[in-house]
Amino acid sequence: MHNDLIVIDGLQYSNWDRTIFEQLKQGGVTMVHVTIVYHEQIRETLLRISEWNRHFELNSDLIMPVKSADDIRLAKSVGKVGIMFGAQNCSPIEDDIGMVSVMRELNMMIMQLTYNNQSLLATGCYESNDSGVTRFGRQVIQEMNRVGMVVDMSHSAERSTLEAIEISERPIVISHANPISFHDAKRNKSDTVLKALGNSGGLLGFSLYPFHLKDGPDCTLEDFCTMVADTADLMGIDQIGIGTDLCQNQPVSILEWMRNGRWSKEMDYGEGSKSNADWPRPLSWFKDSRDFPNITQGLKQHGFNDADIAKVMGQNWLTFLDDALVPRS
Amino acid sequence: MHNDLIVIDGLQYSNWDRTIFEQLKQGGVTMVHVTIVYHEQIRETLLRISEWNRHFELNSDLIMPVKSADDIRLAKSVGKVGIMFGAQNCSPIEDDIGMVSVMRELNMMIMQLTYNNQSLLATGCYESNDSGVTRFGRQVIQEMNRVGMVVDMSHSAERSTLEAIEISERPIVISHANPISFHDAKRNKSDTVLKALGNSGGLLGFSLYPFHLKDGPDCTLEDFCTMVADTADLMGIDQIGIGTDLCQNQPVSILEWMRNGRWSKEMDYGEGSKSNADWPRPLSWFKDSRDFPNITQGLKQHGFNDADIAKVMGQNWLTFLDDALVPRS
Repeated sequence: MHNDLIVIDGLQYSNWDRTIFEQLKQGGVTMVHVTIVYHEQIRETLLRISEWNRHFELNSDLIMPVKSADDIRLAKSVGKVGIMFGAQNCSPIEDDIGMVSVMRELNMMIMQLTYNNQSLLATGCYESNDSGVTRFGRQVIQEMNRVGMVVDMSHSAERSTLEAIEISERPIVISHANPISFHDAKRNKSDTVLKALGNSGGLLGFSLYPFHLKDGPDCTLEDFCTMVADTADLMGIDQIGIGTDLCQNQPVSILEWMRNGRWSKEMDYGEGSKSNADWPRPLSWFKDSRDFPNITQGLKQHGFNDADIAKVMGQNWLTFLDDALVPRS
Repeated sequence: MHNDLIVIDGLQYSNWDRTIFEQLKQGGVTMVHVTIVYHEQIRETLLRISEWNRHFELNSDLIMPVKSADDIRLAKSVGKVGIMFGAQNCSPIEDDIGMVSVMRELNMMIMQLTYNNQSLLATGCYESNDSGVTRFGRQVIQEMNRVGMVVDMSHSAERSTLEAIEISERPIVISHANPISFHDAKRNKSDTVLKALGNSGGLLGFSLYPFHLKDGPDCTLEDFCTMVADTADLMGIDQIGIGTDLCQNQPVSILEWMRNGRWSKEMDYGEGSKSNADWPRPLSWFKDSRDFPNITQGLKQHGFNDADIAKVMGQNWLTFLDDALVPRS
């Protein structure tokens, strides 16, 4: 089965280099959605894209850019790892509706409306109050629908997420999060949100970031697979996938950038705390992309059949993107 | 009285040229708070500042920059019009808390936390839902307090305004708006807000923009002065001033920029409508800055004494700024 399996990771933000690209290939990853920006604005986003262009140039034997869902199949057939660009905040469009199509032309395929804090578009999951999707946000969702850029609400607050599901004419994703019923964290999602997401044809990518898991770094593979099964019961087997949130080889300064951007003079510790400010310990069964076969194996041992394993490991993401990335004229 | 009167206009956004500077002088204006940006971000704000530097260079016989409250007294004594920079949105700090002090060093003395829409800091008065001051917003208010930059909530929603009054350790302003009790408009303010503003030592500048006035362009000077008197009863005579919102000689394209920025693909008509998309007709008794003596005269005829007229026409603004512009170390 392994050779035919399409494996899609719905989100990583690693300190990209050739070693990591090799690990992705060794782990059988067909395509990875890479976060190219957290809080970077337009000019800085272009810098990140130019860095990726250099990665593509220097590692063309290992990776290739994904400019459509068919490029994922192409990556599979030529034995390369497809790289799909995404943004974890709406900073790459700044205050400009016109930047949605510009960024899409640069192959930004997916964008979060918020990252923890209030954005110009919606409310993040760390704010005390959630006013939902803003006037600008409604227009941006409509424009993302038009150009074929996926709305991602992973770091958004509840009401904003429910409104985005409602407002968007195309299904949206939560690319990297888990159910609150599995582990209660600000970043995880209520059954209300997950049901609405599933009913609308959306997709949840399960996170492997220890702060999103029961027992943190000590979460067992079996517990993880039980969560997958329970969520399949809640949302449907076609609406779930993987989004590891793997942040490999990143220094703490990057964690601080993710958490603080430029908005805070005081240190914000996000999902950590002052006494636990560093990256979490990795899971024993998922240390880097070479461990994807462990997840496949875990699902098999849990009792998933081969067809359902294929769906969870990548087929659902592929089916979702087959429609979601096609621009409407 | 006229020669001694300190006249302060709490907000104008005109298409500045020598003729307008001459009108300000003819009208006896000591200082005008000029909006230098609506939605401009950092780089564009620097462009606007450089344009003002050119105005100062070419019109040094008429105008001078205000870098402290004492510069207002200096302007009075040398017979020039003081120019105080302000921003109608928080776009000049973009996503960066560090830009508050940078902009203050460039003499940005006052900044609105929102302009009609949701911003990164708070909610504007045109949004359906108001979630109050955001995480970033709390830090920005604290930093504005520190560097001596005035918080202005003229275009903000009710809850956000009440929270800003509460959070700010220094009094804030609503530089250009009127009571809803006088004219019901999204931009005007409830008695709840005005009382809280007055009780906290804040200041309201009365707007002369026809959309903010009873009977619009046909509002009489007497009705305006009655509103001033009623608001003095509500807030206290020391907490009110003028903020004309005069937008002189601006093309409709500027009105569209104010209303739409870069956020909307559709035309937003703000306080107007599709069938009433243009600038409103001016008031007969306040067509431009030469008409300030009409207001003074109107207040006198209404029965205000000279001391109270002086307060409303400028002394209250000066007293407010005497404290508000001083940085705290």
